[in-house]
Amino acid sequence: MDVLSVKNHPKQVLKAIVPKHLDILCTHPMFGPQSGKYGWQNLPFVYDEVRISNQARLEKVLKLYSAEGCKMIKMQCDIHDSYAAKSQFITHFTGRILGNLGIQSTPINTKGFESLLQLRENTVSDSMDLFHALYKYNDCAMSQLQEFQDSMHFVRSQLEGISRT
Amino acid sequence: MDVLSVKNHPKQVLKAIVPKHLDILCTHPMFGPQSGKYGWQNLPFVYDEVRISNQARLEKVLKLYSAEGCKMIKMQCDIHDSYAAKSQFITHFTGRILGNLGIQSTPINTKGFESLLQLRENTVSDSMDLFHALYKYNDCAMSQLQEFQDSMHFVRSQLEGISRT
Repeated sequence: MDVLSVKNHPKQVLKAIVPKHLDILCTHPMFGPQSGKYGWQNLPFVYDEVRISNQARLEKVLKLYSAEGCKMIKMQCDIHDSYAAKSQFITHFTGRILGNLGIQSTPINTKGFESLLQLRENTVSDSMDLFHALYKYNDCAMSQLQEFQDSMHFVRSQLEGISRT
Repeated sequence: MDVLSVKNHPKQVLKAIVPKHLDILCTHPMFGPQSGKYGWQNLPFVYDEVRISNQARLEKVLKLYSAEGCKMIKMQCDIHDSYAAKSQFITHFTGRILGNLGIQSTPINTKGFESLLQLRENTVSDSMDLFHALYKYNDCAMSQLQEFQDSMHFVRSQLEGISRT
């Protein structure tokens, strides 16, 4: 059983190296020290039954999470990675940009800006290792990063198309 | 009295064209249809007493906002614009990038990603005119936009410095 934040890479590694008589369960509990601070109710637990012979043991393991109220989502690893690149990776990437930009609370914060400060706080407090892994071991992340950059250039060009009066 | 989202530009215009015997009060109620939906409690109301001869009338106007619970902040227009570029403009810029990127809810949203979806929703529902004005008439916005872009390139280089194993 693995609990990594990317799924297809460990799935392929485990399939290649784990002896045939052992079961493989790939999972991603999609929460961390911040989002799961006050309980796991409705937080996503993604799993892929890659190779299961002992059904009773599988159910026992899944029960550990479902009993805590997790939203149990059975999903193939490659589908997980595709969704995660468009959501979790983009979230961390945005948070890291804001962190590097050094955004700070001002005396005139809007509600929207306060949610950015919160986002920055949550992502920057996760390890750099996690952030690297979300990019390095998810085949969909690179194209998402490029799309984010293209999108930024597009929005910038929209703004700069309007000349100063 | 003006209620625009940028402050120094209208202040200069009003000072130039408003006859000397009229008062000038520049304000920015820093909330909109989304953030002020359920009341104005603790939402910032920024004001600059540019030219006030009738003190009683000024107090009557400010009372309209303080009575609703707004956080009343007396601040010079150029200071407002400097803070706003680093907070409100960055918020709108980030929201527009996410809107143009077409982020969508997935079956495996993390809490952080849900706050990005909310941010996208709130900023994209504001008018494009407002977004343009936040850039065009705030002298500090251009350098913030450049810093955001530099920050994005830095984070990207951090990721790409880690080669695939």
